[in-house]
Amino acid sequence: MAVGLAPMGELAAVPGIRIGVSAAGIKYPNRDDIALFELAPGCAVGGVFTQNAFRAPPVAVAAGRLGHARAFVVNSGNANAATGERGVADARACCAAAAAALGCGADDVLPFSTGVIGEFLPMRRMRDGITRAAAALSAAGWGAAARAMMTTDTQPKGVSATFPVAGRTVTATAIVKGSGMIRPNMATMLAFLGTDAKLSPAATQRLAAALAERSFNRLTVDGDTSTNDAFVVAATGAAGVGDGQEDALLAGLTPLVVELAQRTVRDGEGATKFVTVNVSGGATREDCRRVAYAVAHSPLVKTAIFAGDPNWGRFCMAIGNAGVSGLEPGRVSLHLNDVCVAEGGMIAASYTEAAGTAVMAQDEFEVSIDLGAGPCAETVWTSDLSHDYVRINAEYRT
Amino acid sequence: MAVGLAPMGELAAVPGIRIGVSAAGIKYPNRDDIALFELAPGCAVGGVFTQNAFRAPPVAVAAGRLGHARAFVVNSGNANAATGERGVADARACCAAAAAALGCGADDVLPFSTGVIGEFLPMRRMRDGITRAAAALSAAGWGAAARAMMTTDTQPKGVSATFPVAGRTVTATAIVKGSGMIRPNMATMLAFLGTDAKLSPAATQRLAAALAERSFNRLTVDGDTSTNDAFVVAATGAAGVGDGQEDALLAGLTPLVVELAQRTVRDGEGATKFVTVNVSGGATREDCRRVAYAVAHSPLVKTAIFAGDPNWGRFCMAIGNAGVSGLEPGRVSLHLNDVCVAEGGMIAASYTEAAGTAVMAQDEFEVSIDLGAGPCAETVWTSDLSHDYVRINAEYRT
Repeated sequence: MAVGLAPMGELAAVPGIRIGVSAAGIKYPNRDDIALFELAPGCAVGGVFTQNAFRAPPVAVAAGRLGHARAFVVNSGNANAATGERGVADARACCAAAAAALGCGADDVLPFSTGVIGEFLPMRRMRDGITRAAAALSAAGWGAAARAMMTTDTQPKGVSATFPVAGRTVTATAIVKGSGMIRPNMATMLAFLGTDAKLSPAATQRLAAALAERSFNRLTVDGDTSTNDAFVVAATGAAGVGDGQEDALLAGLTPLVVELAQRTVRDGEGATKFVTVNVSGGATREDCRRVAYAVAHSPLVKTAIFAGDPNWGRFCMAIGNAGVSGLEPGRVSLHLNDVCVAEGGMIAASYTEAAGTAVMAQDEFEVSIDLGAGPCAETVWTSDLSHDYVRINAEYRT
Repeated sequence: MAVGLAPMGELAAVPGIRIGVSAAGIKYPNRDDIALFELAPGCAVGGVFTQNAFRAPPVAVAAGRLGHARAFVVNSGNANAATGERGVADARACCAAAAAALGCGADDVLPFSTGVIGEFLPMRRMRDGITRAAAALSAAGWGAAARAMMTTDTQPKGVSATFPVAGRTVTATAIVKGSGMIRPNMATMLAFLGTDAKLSPAATQRLAAALAERSFNRLTVDGDTSTNDAFVVAATGAAGVGDGQEDALLAGLTPLVVELAQRTVRDGEGATKFVTVNVSGGATREDCRRVAYAVAHSPLVKTAIFAGDPNWGRFCMAIGNAGVSGLEPGRVSLHLNDVCVAEGGMIAASYTEAAGTAVMAQDEFEVSIDLGAGPCAETVWTSDLSHDYVRINAEYRT
């Protein structure tokens, strides 16, 4: 039920990173649910994490271990969230198991979990799975890791790129899992980007934050922020360039994370439409973002998008609810692709229902709102609210 | 598809108020869609209105005419919203038509509209319908008015009461329409309360605001605030008591508006469950309300409620997203009716899935959250997110 989601292609190996996966039977039998990332000595790690107050124990442990690191241990099927002190101890024990298998310190391992909230990890199976993943390490493991992280995702999502920096070639591969409970706040569900760029921990952290701001912080599926969101960047340094080249790296990596963010929306739970909401003419970027999210979150707008109904009334209701002070309805215009639906706060004289319906019948289109109040603009990507969203979430235990 | 919604009983006449309805063919043929309220000379009117920035022309006109008034003219089928200056002129023309039929000033008439947004009122049919409604005025018209206001409501909603004030009997009848686009902000879709209490305009306004705060401002169906919300109180004075008795009136009228607010949720679009969300132990009432609304708005919580799934993980996700500063997950507890699901931020040792499922299998239940941070409490009423919510809103043009 994904929208225009091309199959994941070949993912490039990143010098300095090896990955192994295993099937630990955490929630389902016979499917990979553990991914272990081995990072070369000296690898810098930055990351951004969920702002949910109920942030899960592995998030708290991982956030405390940014800087230099030697491994990530990731599992799906169980989020190890709302599990208290025992959850913290379990997350640390997973790291210790990975450290024992890899021969590094337990403090050099960052844990990540996604899946059911409120249940304890099956630690015997976790330890066994981590040991087996360590025995399967391979530079070619990125695609398998993308598959091992999946929960309600219909497809694994990953992308690779190489680009020149200061006369050398930098390689990067990034993977993401996420389909529902998606309105990231500083990060998305779980996303990992590995690159062989050479960066300090501080520069890696700045890069992670800047990339999240341009990608995962611009999307919403259902407005719910997970307890386990994390986006982590690992820079191995094997390419020998990067320090002092942060602008070039940001420019080279941004297309990867934007592509991954859009893929997350395309694979949104029950999605039948992929919609780009552009808001321009705002007095501030925050105003634009508020309006874009108010439109992208409204159940009434999302059901109208599902129905392919160019319902100006619901859009104007949502814009009016965005909490933008001083919003003047009489200056607001709305386009669906290049069809002018409303201007001056009212249906445009030139507008025909047939023209609006033709745009909304497409799988992908743009909603462009101008607030007529200033020079700022923002963009958010979203999906629709379909019968399948309800079915999936009524059947699936998050 | 309403939840535990008893049929509307007989509604009591309110001395000083007569109501006529007519079928003007605004959206559908052969169903009443206009209700005209005639108020006795000297009637005081107070009201609260939507905070949506795209507030509809009739809302703007009505809000400017509180104080003393002689009539309300109400239509369903067309919200006269996002219609600009022409919408304002149309709303005033409806008032003028009512004034001509009733022999009062046009400025003494308040207009209210609900239905499709972004279309102009069919003025010839409106004028004709208003004239016919004026010819049908009756003290017994409350039930017919409740029916004439309906849009996606499955049942008309109204309630009456008499209660003693200062040795006399005060009568009140209130009606409401609303089913979707329901997260009132100072008011709900359209609600009218008539009473024969004797009050000044200022006291009537205070009463309207206090009643809305205790009822319509405590509910949500889909988190979307309409462009046309209005809750209006008309106090005719025929009972000869009221001034200086505001506390007694508030106490006597609160059960009516709470009942109407709950009926609005019970008749929420696609609702299969009626859920009371109680939040206690907050440092402030605002914290409690944020948590209650975060839970009541979350699509993932609402689909779990639809499924009857006692999904603690989704509740804790929503609580964590409420934006309450200093929230300590380790102090949070959650009950479903009297079943303790979680305490100390984790699943309770005594909890069994069977006990939680038994509560959530019921059509109506309470979710009680304690934040462990202070003495404050708040309550919000909500419904679930069902297949029928999507179907109704994908088919219906708001």
